[in-house]
Amino acid sequence: MDVRYINPFLSSIRNVFDTMIHVPFNIGKPRLKEDSTPLYDISGIIGLSGDVTGCVVINLSKSVALQIASALLFEEMTEVNADCTDAIGEVANMISGNAKKDFPDGHVSISTPSVVIGKHAVVYPSNKPIISIPCETSAGRMLVDVCLQTVPVPANV
Amino acid sequence: MDVRYINPFLSSIRNVFDTMIHVPFNIGKPRLKEDSTPLYDISGIIGLSGDVTGCVVINLSKSVALQIASALLFEEMTEVNADCTDAIGEVANMISGNAKKDFPDGHVSISTPSVVIGKHAVVYPSNKPIISIPCETSAGRMLVDVCLQTVPVPANV
Repeated sequence: MDVRYINPFLSSIRNVFDTMIHVPFNIGKPRLKEDSTPLYDISGIIGLSGDVTGCVVINLSKSVALQIASALLFEEMTEVNADCTDAIGEVANMISGNAKKDFPDGHVSISTPSVVIGKHAVVYPSNKPIISIPCETSAGRMLVDVCLQTVPVPANV
Repeated sequence: MDVRYINPFLSSIRNVFDTMIHVPFNIGKPRLKEDSTPLYDISGIIGLSGDVTGCVVINLSKSVALQIASALLFEEMTEVNADCTDAIGEVANMISGNAKKDFPDGHVSISTPSVVIGKHAVVYPSNKPIISIPCETSAGRMLVDVCLQTVPVPANV
């Protein structure tokens, strides 16, 4: 996958944590995801369409979700309720929305987020590379998985 | 939710089963979904963006997924592998793509599908109605959940 579509996510994650979440964090080295083994119980999923199609999935444990939702909502969250899942959806939305602004070209729309809870795996379309960006907070790790494909421009345009 | 955005899904589900899947089916009465209790282990999720935002989720058991994937791929599928999940993503894609063509107005993009496997619940954005359309096949039930919101047109456009 073209780094010009991955670097915007690194900047965007940093930006969202710095300006909205205010939780100490470290971004690790992006790596190619080799399998869809389930890791953490909560996923926020955003679909992309337009000149770039694909999906962005943030995958995190309950403890990281509560930490991030508490920070975002300025109140101590102790259970994964609707406010918490809305907050996780909003984090996925902010990361994707900020990132797409820095894509090299093309028009891209992002969908509203879906949030999945439970022992699950998100399976990506086969034969497409997935880049996984690890983010460490004091409550644990959040993964940002990016699976994108640029859509070729028709020759007559 | 405006029936003008639900009726296209009823036609689209019928159309996709009739022309692509060729499995006997019945569409039940759409109902308002009251909770996000997990039902079946496989979900195909499509996000919508543009003048209508939201998501479309097909939720089905392993046996229904295998039945539909086998019918779509013209081969007997016995495990939920990448071909099967790609097929389920494609069914979600076809249902959403066909339906949006019959929306009353506006430009709507659909994202590439994500497929979720495991004991999970898809949590929809809170305070938005979800219409659930049940479809019965001989292998069991598939639900098509539709959570949409029209985006108001700015006054100066």
